[in-house]
Amino acid sequence: LENKENIVIIGCGASGGTAAQFARKTNRKSNIIILEKGKYPQYSKCGIPYVISGIIPEKNDLIEFSEEWFKKANIQLSLKTIVEKIDTKKQLIIAKKEEKRIEIKYDKLIFATGAKPFVPPIQNLKEDNKIIKGVYSLRTINDLEKILSTIKKSKKAVVIGAGFIGLETAENLYKKNIETVVIEALDHIMPNSFDIDMSKVLKEKIPKDLEILTNHLATRINKNHDKIKSIIAKNKKTNEETEIHTDFIVLATGVKPDVKLAKEAGCEIGDAGGIKVNNKSETNIKNIYAAGDCTEYYDYITAKPKTIGLGSTAVRQAIAAGINSSGGTYILPKGFLSTYTSEFFNVEIAGVGPSQKDLNEFDIVNAKYNGLSHPHYFPGGKPITIKILVDKPTGMIAGAQAIGDKAAQRINTIACAILGEMDIETFRKLETAYAPPVSPTLEAETIVCDIISKKLKKI
Amino acid sequence: LENKENIVIIGCGASGGTAAQFARKTNRKSNIIILEKGKYPQYSKCGIPYVISGIIPEKNDLIEFSEEWFKKANIQLSLKTIVEKIDTKKQLIIAKKEEKRIEIKYDKLIFATGAKPFVPPIQNLKEDNKIIKGVYSLRTINDLEKILSTIKKSKKAVVIGAGFIGLETAENLYKKNIETVVIEALDHIMPNSFDIDMSKVLKEKIPKDLEILTNHLATRINKNHDKIKSIIAKNKKTNEETEIHTDFIVLATGVKPDVKLAKEAGCEIGDAGGIKVNNKSETNIKNIYAAGDCTEYYDYITAKPKTIGLGSTAVRQAIAAGINSSGGTYILPKGFLSTYTSEFFNVEIAGVGPSQKDLNEFDIVNAKYNGLSHPHYFPGGKPITIKILVDKPTGMIAGAQAIGDKAAQRINTIACAILGEMDIETFRKLETAYAPPVSPTLEAETIVCDIISKKLKKI
Repeated sequence: LENKENIVIIGCGASGGTAAQFARKTNRKSNIIILEKGKYPQYSKCGIPYVISGIIPEKNDLIEFSEEWFKKANIQLSLKTIVEKIDTKKQLIIAKKEEKRIEIKYDKLIFATGAKPFVPPIQNLKEDNKIIKGVYSLRTINDLEKILSTIKKSKKAVVIGAGFIGLETAENLYKKNIETVVIEALDHIMPNSFDIDMSKVLKEKIPKDLEILTNHLATRINKNHDKIKSIIAKNKKTNEETEIHTDFIVLATGVKPDVKLAKEAGCEIGDAGGIKVNNKSETNIKNIYAAGDCTEYYDYITAKPKTIGLGSTAVRQAIAAGINSSGGTYILPKGFLSTYTSEFFNVEIAGVGPSQKDLNEFDIVNAKYNGLSHPHYFPGGKPITIKILVDKPTGMIAGAQAIGDKAAQRINTIACAILGEMDIETFRKLETAYAPPVSPTLEAETIVCDIISKKLKKI
Repeated sequence: LENKENIVIIGCGASGGTAAQFARKTNRKSNIIILEKGKYPQYSKCGIPYVISGIIPEKNDLIEFSEEWFKKANIQLSLKTIVEKIDTKKQLIIAKKEEKRIEIKYDKLIFATGAKPFVPPIQNLKEDNKIIKGVYSLRTINDLEKILSTIKKSKKAVVIGAGFIGLETAENLYKKNIETVVIEALDHIMPNSFDIDMSKVLKEKIPKDLEILTNHLATRINKNHDKIKSIIAKNKKTNEETEIHTDFIVLATGVKPDVKLAKEAGCEIGDAGGIKVNNKSETNIKNIYAAGDCTEYYDYITAKPKTIGLGSTAVRQAIAAGINSSGGTYILPKGFLSTYTSEFFNVEIAGVGPSQKDLNEFDIVNAKYNGLSHPHYFPGGKPITIKILVDKPTGMIAGAQAIGDKAAQRINTIACAILGEMDIETFRKLETAYAPPVSPTLEAETIVCDIISKKLKKI
């Protein structure tokens, strides 16, 4: 190694790979080294559910940047490399690659260690402190491989959790003709993102034979010899227990930041359980950055610390870490906007900002509107439901949720209004693009704002 | 009439109808009277081309709000009513309805008189100072009726003008199996909206057998007895003349504001030829407002006066006129953002702000990027080309143009950034919604901004 800066990145997920890419763009001369414990280069975690149904044909299609790509970009990617210890005084990393001990000096270190699945307390879920066969998370290609091989000999599945990953997994199992039941402990689907009224609109779009039990706790797994036989779902209101026969179980009960190494290195872990980072993706320790699911940052609206499991924010924090660690400057907004999207049974959904329950310290006014993608006289209009939440005292937009036509792009526009600290009176006057084959003169989001403005007695 | 305010609106197009609607929403008690010279209530002018091909099945489908609707809304709509004179001292309107003279007192008057087609100087276009049979504009249902009846006995058409209306008309004629040639005097299609490079991208999406002659002037019409035989298109560079045989001709060469009545009433007509209005849609005369195609206002970016023939701005000015004339307050942004969209042969296009030629007094940096709607690993991604123009000294976004996937909604987001006076450094950090079946982690518009930021040496 010549006398160049060593930028070492732990983890080659979306954040690790992106940080490396932007570090390289910023400084053509540094040594950039990624240490990844798994055997795959950067792949899409978010794409995993779609390999189950075959929408994405092969697990290898998930690989976004190959080993060759990193080589060409002059980034050293070391797979199957487990970091054991970080000496922040000597700026030294001790790792093990297939039983071989490695020592690497770093000038800048970026944690991109991601998150681990949260495992809920279900009776018989573990044996000898290990998750039993037939119960899977869906976070890695390794998890996917297990599910793909299980599916071949299965007819029934239970998914625990009706958030994004749970519903995406359930849809793809359903499309693979697996009889699927979803168990959700909270009282509506997408409980951490959508308000209950929007969840109801979404639930209407999901086929009735994909059963979703909300307000139910998965309490106990029953086995028959070595195989899973059923799972007990307990109604939280009535305490009634339902036995659901199933061949396997997918856990989609959220994740927690993987902070073990960072914590041992002395990085501050925040109230939300992630590595605390600032708007440059710096940790509290000099020359150490962190990006993605292992971090915690602030909510843009509430300013409360939060972890977020979104690829979009991971990538943006990684851009900041990559650029800032390499002599450039990239300052992130003051918090996560938390813009999200997905698609369920051909219905796009999206949102930005906290849902109403996370805004209970604010005085919120909201409205919802069912519009169409096209003017009424133009055939082929598709439904769009939009809800917007506004902070009453300031008129500022605090969040929005959308279901239907081009939901994500509409939410991006609202996210832009939030980032621009725009109040509802300004935003509702936004001149949106209009032409009969594309959109109406007043978009659904404009009309929602008009309703809110009227509620604020400002018409 | 009881002793209520009389709000009189001249014209029942999108602006007139919308102004009435919002005047009614603002004040439940006023008398609202619309005087419309034509025989139809509020209909969509922008929808007219699509009746030619049958995408919109019937001309009556274009009617957005029927006479019954206005009646129910307690708005008096008087059709076939021609305003002859306005006495601004007495606040009195003199009109004629089917030879009957009417006098109406107004407390507030709103001009929504729209615009008239511009008729280019083409030899033999007129006889006895009237446009000859076989040459049509496409602005009213009356025009449409003529074209619909002509089409039945026609095989060939020429459209003059390759702006929105020209291209939309040409596409619908083409879909009706009419052999169509478009003649455009300027050097590229969409010359007033798109930069030449974006026009080229769009032109690639138009079938080759829909011929478009750019840089050609339509100079002379040749007739055969009473019928049109051909039109001469002269190459502006070589002066070469081409004779194009055609059965009829559609003029799509733009419009000019209809300001006759307003001018006679003493309203100030601005440099761009429209009724000058402010951010409340007020004219210079007390109690008189104007909205839509008959007005001129400012360009948001250049601050120059401009007329604009967009339904989206017409409706917004009309909301302002309706609310402000009725005791409410609705302040428009400081200028037209000029957000536009259309769809040609299933390709959506959109833009916001001036094109580069209208920004020649500014120091502009721009970039263009060809992206995909989806991450590369997810099947079915559709192309999207986005160009963004940025004012170099301030970093402010001055305009954008898009072709392809969800172009209009993407442009709405950029329009929001412009309205929020957001610079490129802020906008490029916007957290956009990401999920494999919907969108990539970094949208094309984000990547364009990154390129521009790099050009500004700010990476």
